[in-house]
Amino acid sequence: MLGQFTYYNPTKLYFGEGALRYLNEELPKYGPTVQLIYGGGSIKRSGVYDQVIAALKANGKRVVEDGGVMPNPTTEKLREGVRIARENQVDLLLAVGGGSCCDYAKAVSVSVHCDEDPWEKYYLRFEEPTCEIVPVGCVLTMAGTGSEMNGGAVITDRAAKLKIGHVFGSDVMPRFSVLDPRFTMTLPKRQMVAGIYDIFNHICEQYFSGEDENVSDDLAEALMKGVVRDSLVAVRDPGDYEARSNIMWAATWALNTLIAKGKSTDWMVHMLGQSVGGFTDATHGMTLSAVSLPYYRFIMPFGLKKFARFAVNVWDVRPDGKSDRELAEAGLAAMEAWMKEIGVALSIGELGVTADMIEDIADTVEPMTGGYRTLTRDDVVRVLRASL
Amino acid sequence: MLGQFTYYNPTKLYFGEGALRYLNEELPKYGPTVQLIYGGGSIKRSGVYDQVIAALKANGKRVVEDGGVMPNPTTEKLREGVRIARENQVDLLLAVGGGSCCDYAKAVSVSVHCDEDPWEKYYLRFEEPTCEIVPVGCVLTMAGTGSEMNGGAVITDRAAKLKIGHVFGSDVMPRFSVLDPRFTMTLPKRQMVAGIYDIFNHICEQYFSGEDENVSDDLAEALMKGVVRDSLVAVRDPGDYEARSNIMWAATWALNTLIAKGKSTDWMVHMLGQSVGGFTDATHGMTLSAVSLPYYRFIMPFGLKKFARFAVNVWDVRPDGKSDRELAEAGLAAMEAWMKEIGVALSIGELGVTADMIEDIADTVEPMTGGYRTLTRDDVVRVLRASL
Repeated sequence: MLGQFTYYNPTKLYFGEGALRYLNEELPKYGPTVQLIYGGGSIKRSGVYDQVIAALKANGKRVVEDGGVMPNPTTEKLREGVRIARENQVDLLLAVGGGSCCDYAKAVSVSVHCDEDPWEKYYLRFEEPTCEIVPVGCVLTMAGTGSEMNGGAVITDRAAKLKIGHVFGSDVMPRFSVLDPRFTMTLPKRQMVAGIYDIFNHICEQYFSGEDENVSDDLAEALMKGVVRDSLVAVRDPGDYEARSNIMWAATWALNTLIAKGKSTDWMVHMLGQSVGGFTDATHGMTLSAVSLPYYRFIMPFGLKKFARFAVNVWDVRPDGKSDRELAEAGLAAMEAWMKEIGVALSIGELGVTADMIEDIADTVEPMTGGYRTLTRDDVVRVLRASL
Repeated sequence: MLGQFTYYNPTKLYFGEGALRYLNEELPKYGPTVQLIYGGGSIKRSGVYDQVIAALKANGKRVVEDGGVMPNPTTEKLREGVRIARENQVDLLLAVGGGSCCDYAKAVSVSVHCDEDPWEKYYLRFEEPTCEIVPVGCVLTMAGTGSEMNGGAVITDRAAKLKIGHVFGSDVMPRFSVLDPRFTMTLPKRQMVAGIYDIFNHICEQYFSGEDENVSDDLAEALMKGVVRDSLVAVRDPGDYEARSNIMWAATWALNTLIAKGKSTDWMVHMLGQSVGGFTDATHGMTLSAVSLPYYRFIMPFGLKKFARFAVNVWDVRPDGKSDRELAEAGLAAMEAWMKEIGVALSIGELGVTADMIEDIADTVEPMTGGYRTLTRDDVVRVLRASL
């Protein structure tokens, strides 16, 4: 742990079957008006909506509806959410859904009492909130983004084809999150798998950087091995509670700042994936999987020792007599075989990208400097072409 | 993660060289009077005391001295600390030292505004605090106990030869802890090594229990592997900052509740070690190491699969063709070789226990029910005899 850092994550997590009952402990802490944030209505089909409404009513809350949050929440939707919150003077933003709902709630939370346009202030100028922040709570129904225990909020400007994430501080993190693995089990298999790859890639983004031996990388390897093990169970039997609950818990710890401590981090796969997402509206996890292998094969020579360690410690490749390069390649081959087995997208072509779109996509890719190599625009184009 | 649980750990950690400067962010949050808690004066020799005093003065605090906290804080010292806090109406208890100072500060914190005797209320009757709790901050100078990010507080009644721990809730956890690995480097090597074994055993206590595959055990293995790696570096060169900083960070995560989530836990080595400590006043970590191997060899048959997994995942024992029993034994043999290499106590005889004390010690051992086997009194005697 060679770096200096602060760790502070005051989100309270209620985990396990039936954890929703803890809303009865949390709701009394907030004022009477709750903005209920959710997506396309799957929570109504699954019955989670009714359970949440019952808890809100039992705690005497006035419910302000804010449904229709899309997988990649847009600037228009954000402005609508802010308007709803202002008009109703809401006391709590309760997101019931996946990472998009929780991200959106956080973006609303820092914008309600802010006069400036949130997209311009937080996403184009990357400023920090100076206004009062409306508290956020979360009932999670999809494992993947880690949004339930961090300050991140990704918003998309569809017209400009820009998908940008802002990681806010601890005062924007959800005050509490309810994590019931059963709530993730009604998700279609393709969404489950996209979430699993999202988790795995969050860990990779923080793991593939830095030079020292540190606890963060040790923990990252443990999380990766666990996600691989549990994903193989969950893909065969999505109803396996043990595997699904492990995946849900790993998702939280994959992106709540712990495994980034004392390290630089990369996030270049997310930059590439988000640009693909801006042009295709494809599921986030699938945009990441589709660019990952070409990207990691491109940077592998610049972080060879770490890729060799990855092969041995995550994929159980035996080091006997192998060079670092052979180990590194064997590790990525094992990762590719796993990705095929769980069924994630392995090309941006299958997400709707065509060769003529590459240059436009490349124009929106933000190069990152924390990984083993800072990509030039030519490098970006090369990786995107290799991902087709 | 088959269990249901709550995770909430709001301690703010400032980690790295020079982290003491963050006292300037924390101290203004509290009232004017600070009870400065420390041990035998090593912080005066190392210069940490002067740095802390300078920060307190710069922030306009009135300092109330409370030095002389012993390695196993006693009931008499606890009552003295409570008296000091009451007489001076202190606003913050600032522990500067190792786990003993931090434990003691927490025990004082729940007792200042409590009319009953703290030993009887919290340690004999195991009640929870209902009174106002004085906030605790910590500047850590020894890595090991994890007290900097949990609610645990161990107190010893010397007359009754009882050493008892109470794990309080999140409102008793330190509000902030300063972790500068440089501060641990003036520690004598034997104390460093005792701390390292304490960390390792904290992980074992939570790992050797339960049946399911879970994220907690994955993370536990990562922490154990890292502690073994870094301890071997630190024993050769106690001035290796990277190794010492990893050990300090691992210590925090070994006992801040994370790796116990979704699991039952054991803590029988601590029960045995604490009883030995009650009779010898030996260093905590050494009492644990001295009873560990006989204890784990005793329970191994009842948790064979986990001990086999331990061998493969922590000690890199190759499974090829070996039975679970062979693997399990090879894992404990590797652990024993490591313990010899770092130089921890391997018998309670070397801590001053003689054969005629065994029965009296056994009388004070509390049997635990969360591990692979609940020990009878005869079992306890057998393990203690094997530890002689």
